[in-house]
Amino acid sequence: MDEFDIIDRYFAPLAAENQNALGLTDDAALVHPPTGHELVIAKDAIVQGVHFIGDETPADIARKLLRVNLSDMAAMGAKPYGYLLALMLPSSTDNTWFASFARGLREDQKRYGITLLGGDTTHTQGELCLSATMLGWTPVGAALKRRGAKAGDDLYVSGTIGDGALGVRVARGEPRIASRESRNYLLQRYRLPEPRVMLGQRLKGIATSCMDISDGLVQDLGHICECSHVGAKIDFPLIPLSQAARAVLPKIQSPYETVLAGGDDYELLFTAPPEAAKALSALARKLDIRIGRIGSIVKGNRIKVMNEQGKMLILKRRGYSHF
Amino acid sequence: MDEFDIIDRYFAPLAAENQNALGLTDDAALVHPPTGHELVIAKDAIVQGVHFIGDETPADIARKLLRVNLSDMAAMGAKPYGYLLALMLPSSTDNTWFASFARGLREDQKRYGITLLGGDTTHTQGELCLSATMLGWTPVGAALKRRGAKAGDDLYVSGTIGDGALGVRVARGEPRIASRESRNYLLQRYRLPEPRVMLGQRLKGIATSCMDISDGLVQDLGHICECSHVGAKIDFPLIPLSQAARAVLPKIQSPYETVLAGGDDYELLFTAPPEAAKALSALARKLDIRIGRIGSIVKGNRIKVMNEQGKMLILKRRGYSHF
Repeated sequence: MDEFDIIDRYFAPLAAENQNALGLTDDAALVHPPTGHELVIAKDAIVQGVHFIGDETPADIARKLLRVNLSDMAAMGAKPYGYLLALMLPSSTDNTWFASFARGLREDQKRYGITLLGGDTTHTQGELCLSATMLGWTPVGAALKRRGAKAGDDLYVSGTIGDGALGVRVARGEPRIASRESRNYLLQRYRLPEPRVMLGQRLKGIATSCMDISDGLVQDLGHICECSHVGAKIDFPLIPLSQAARAVLPKIQSPYETVLAGGDDYELLFTAPPEAAKALSALARKLDIRIGRIGSIVKGNRIKVMNEQGKMLILKRRGYSHF
Repeated sequence: MDEFDIIDRYFAPLAAENQNALGLTDDAALVHPPTGHELVIAKDAIVQGVHFIGDETPADIARKLLRVNLSDMAAMGAKPYGYLLALMLPSSTDNTWFASFARGLREDQKRYGITLLGGDTTHTQGELCLSATMLGWTPVGAALKRRGAKAGDDLYVSGTIGDGALGVRVARGEPRIASRESRNYLLQRYRLPEPRVMLGQRLKGIATSCMDISDGLVQDLGHICECSHVGAKIDFPLIPLSQAARAVLPKIQSPYETVLAGGDDYELLFTAPPEAAKALSALARKLDIRIGRIGSIVKGNRIKVMNEQGKMLILKRRGYSHF
């Protein structure tokens, strides 16, 4: 099979429902924004050995690629529309790989209401590099941003924090730090993050600032603080942890850093004024998503994290940085 | 310097003129289509060892990355607007590299009237992989497509064909197949293709089908023929060749394949009815771009190439395919 057979067989069917993808036969896709909406566009890459181990099924790699990009749509409050791919693959990549990869794409296309719009497939002599560009829509002027947090706002996260970072350890075969059930749970949280797409859209008009946590809670909060010219205080005991994380954290080194700076959470981090608390509780119930208040926005530009005894934690690192 | 310092220092200035990029501080960019226009979006990746050798300056690699994507905008007749990047780089990548790469981006931003909108920087243990997503606009319904060629149409190319494929050989240090001057010319054509962005926009309303030649003239023509349900006849002696190519081709093996199937041309391949010939001559003069008629569109689904004696050429290959 050559490149064009692969496109015909595995990728064109994923674009068939959207005539703007032109059947993947043209040099570009055409996209028509709905009236009164603006385009939200994000591009995130995942690389073998960095964002995934390499022992995942191609289907799960495909879904992770879409989901880290969908998480950016969630962060902006956008309704996802479609995506483009750039796949840089070893030339040994075979039909079985493409079939599984396409199956994963199809599964999450259905789940999130998106279609393939276009892209590029090329080979590399190095490791698997995958990039996706995700497109979505928000009503003009309604997008959530990192700027906008105000002193006095409450600070919230969706879901539970730290599972992804613990899942990486499990995936790397670290000493059996938990029961099989906990290990599977954490591994799954790392391999298939749950982008908070519905929540993001419903936070428009409630949240004063929002982003997704990918590099680590404290580091990412730093971006909100910098863009909004504020500081923040986190109460560590308020941070929502999964049962599996609660079981594992006491047994590992640097439990605080793992939660606060581990990354790979793909949960939403957002701020809202205290009077929004009721609306947020209602939203959490309606969407069946945990929303936890973890602290407050304060004046200044510092981020403080308080431990169980109300003492300030000194962190060795704030999050993940490439280079 | 960490990832965020790199973004601040090298990339944020490239996005500063466009407030929709949100200073690269958010999870996504916001894009507002001009009234009556649709978005044209393409995504092409370039990989070290495949699309570039590795001895280029980072500035030239940056410009090639933009240009292969701008060529897709040209093919659709779109006016380029902006781009997103995904850079997958060895962790040894240093400031000098980023400074040169950003300089190249800036140079072509000015040249083509585009700005950086967003993206992602990550490291890889393998070779340099770079992906760009290019956005542009056309009036609704006006985009050039591969479908639309009709039997009786003339077949045209812009510029000269085969220079890129010869440039690859020069770049790989193949036996000194030409004068220093010719070598430099061919190398430059390979390293810095000239996307026909202005021509593409002006072909709207004239061309019946259009695409850019990246994988090889005959193979790419195959896409136009397939999408348009037609065949084509190319007269090899009509194919425009540069002076350098004319000097080199007689000295190498497979001269026909090099021109017809070599790829890396990034010229436009398009069809137009015979009555458009005059408008196309005028356009060529106005834009100072060579436009050459190389054959005709015919009924059927075959592509025939005729040699200097009017005999049909049998090609060993039609173009480049990954995998």
